[in-house]
Amino acid sequence: MSAQENLQRLGITLPVPTAPLAAFELWVQSGNLLFVSGHIAKRDGKPWTGQLGRELTTADGKEAARLVAIDLLGTLQAATGDLDRIQRIVKLTVLVNSTSDFKEQHLVANGASELFAAVLGDRGKHARSAYGTAQLPFGSCVEIELIAEVSA
Amino acid sequence: MSAQENLQRLGITLPVPTAPLAAFELWVQSGNLLFVSGHIAKRDGKPWTGQLGRELTTADGKEAARLVAIDLLGTLQAATGDLDRIQRIVKLTVLVNSTSDFKEQHLVANGASELFAAVLGDRGKHARSAYGTAQLPFGSCVEIELIAEVSA
Amino acid sequence: MSAQENLQRLGITLPVPTAPLAAFELWVQSGNLLFVSGHIAKRDGKPWTGQLGRELTTADGKEAARLVAIDLLGTLQAATGDLDRIQRIVKLTVLVNSTSDFKEQHLVANGASELFAAVLGDRGKHARSAYGTAQLPFGSCVEIELIAEVSA
Repeated sequence: MSAQENLQRLGITLPVPTAPLAAFELWVQSGNLLFVSGHIAKRDGKPWTGQLGRELTTADGKEAARLVAIDLLGTLQAATGDLDRIQRIVKLTVLVNSTSDFKEQHLVANGASELFAAVLGDRGKHARSAYGTAQLPFGSCVEIELIAEVSA
Repeated sequence: MSAQENLQRLGITLPVPTAPLAAFELWVQSGNLLFVSGHIAKRDGKPWTGQLGRELTTADGKEAARLVAIDLLGTLQAATGDLDRIQRIVKLTVLVNSTSDFKEQHLVANGASELFAAVLGDRGKHARSAYGTAQLPFGSCVEIELIAEVSA
Repeated sequence: MSAQENLQRLGITLPVPTAPLAAFELWVQSGNLLFVSGHIAKRDGKPWTGQLGRELTTADGKEAARLVAIDLLGTLQAATGDLDRIQRIVKLTVLVNSTSDFKEQHLVANGASELFAAVLGDRGKHARSAYGTAQLPFGSCVEIELIAEVSA
């Protein structure tokens, strides 16, 4: 199935990304690699704030990571014009706003990893790192950046 | 304008980088991609220490990020011999030494992002992630790594 | 000397990596670049837990980083079939589970950097970033990801 068919099946509408307010780009392509900026978790159009281990549970974090993945797919759609030009999600870096006691960053990250696999199939399977940050921009609970390979 | 002309206009003299004390390199090139090691903030030749949200303000952090960007340009100059061989600053990762309450890592990062744009123009516009670390080597307040694309 | 000869000389037997439990891969190759997922420190087959600055010393962390590097070499062996196909360790990112007061992430990271140089010689010399995370998956003390260049 195509990425669009999978998105329809899952009932997901991709957002159109908005340009960053600051002096950077949402993505830069070099050769076949697309480097996508860190995207923070949002809910109702605002940063989804809170720290894992304090205000938020692992289930909250996993849902937040899933929402970030949807926003990242929106950015990949804008960058490529067609998600089926994505040859591979190469690498995810999943940053989880964590207290010094929260140890389930990998379970939070699964919210994003599972969505990429559901939408892109084998092309969505990626290398990954997940870890706990002291804080994130705007107090958001999760931030994810990625590298994708696109067809020439 | 060339990068050198921009540097002159801004009154910036690039430092000559010193080799790391430890068992790693300041940069490694693979294909057209130059991977530059994390550079920590320095002032008067010593690590600029302190944590954002404790001893340092957002304005301090932004200035520290600008100084790191100057050091990174010094390293890029040493790596390429000519900054105009830089085709693109592809990706910045900006690590901000943060308390668990400091939420303006993106504003700190702008200190670096804006300098790259000022010196390299459109070639300086990059993808970016910024987040809060629990600490940084030597207690420095900001560390930045980058990936650049160089001409063959 | 070949990587295998160096490993024998050092008395190191590489582990065979196990597939991740979650929805991601141990590595993904794109072009000549191999992106290897974050590997956490293990001892006796279990996560080596603890925070630098609290339960663990810099020496502990350096030994943990060395053990992670051995696991990463096991993964590189599995990914390439022959470590001598590794042209270069391009970049290490060393995440150190740190209190807000621990400032020797660079010394911890040396445990990994020195092993790569010992096994792979000049091909093991890499760009690097090291920093302190608020926590890591499973409470592990060190996590390392890397990018390597492999021959075509």
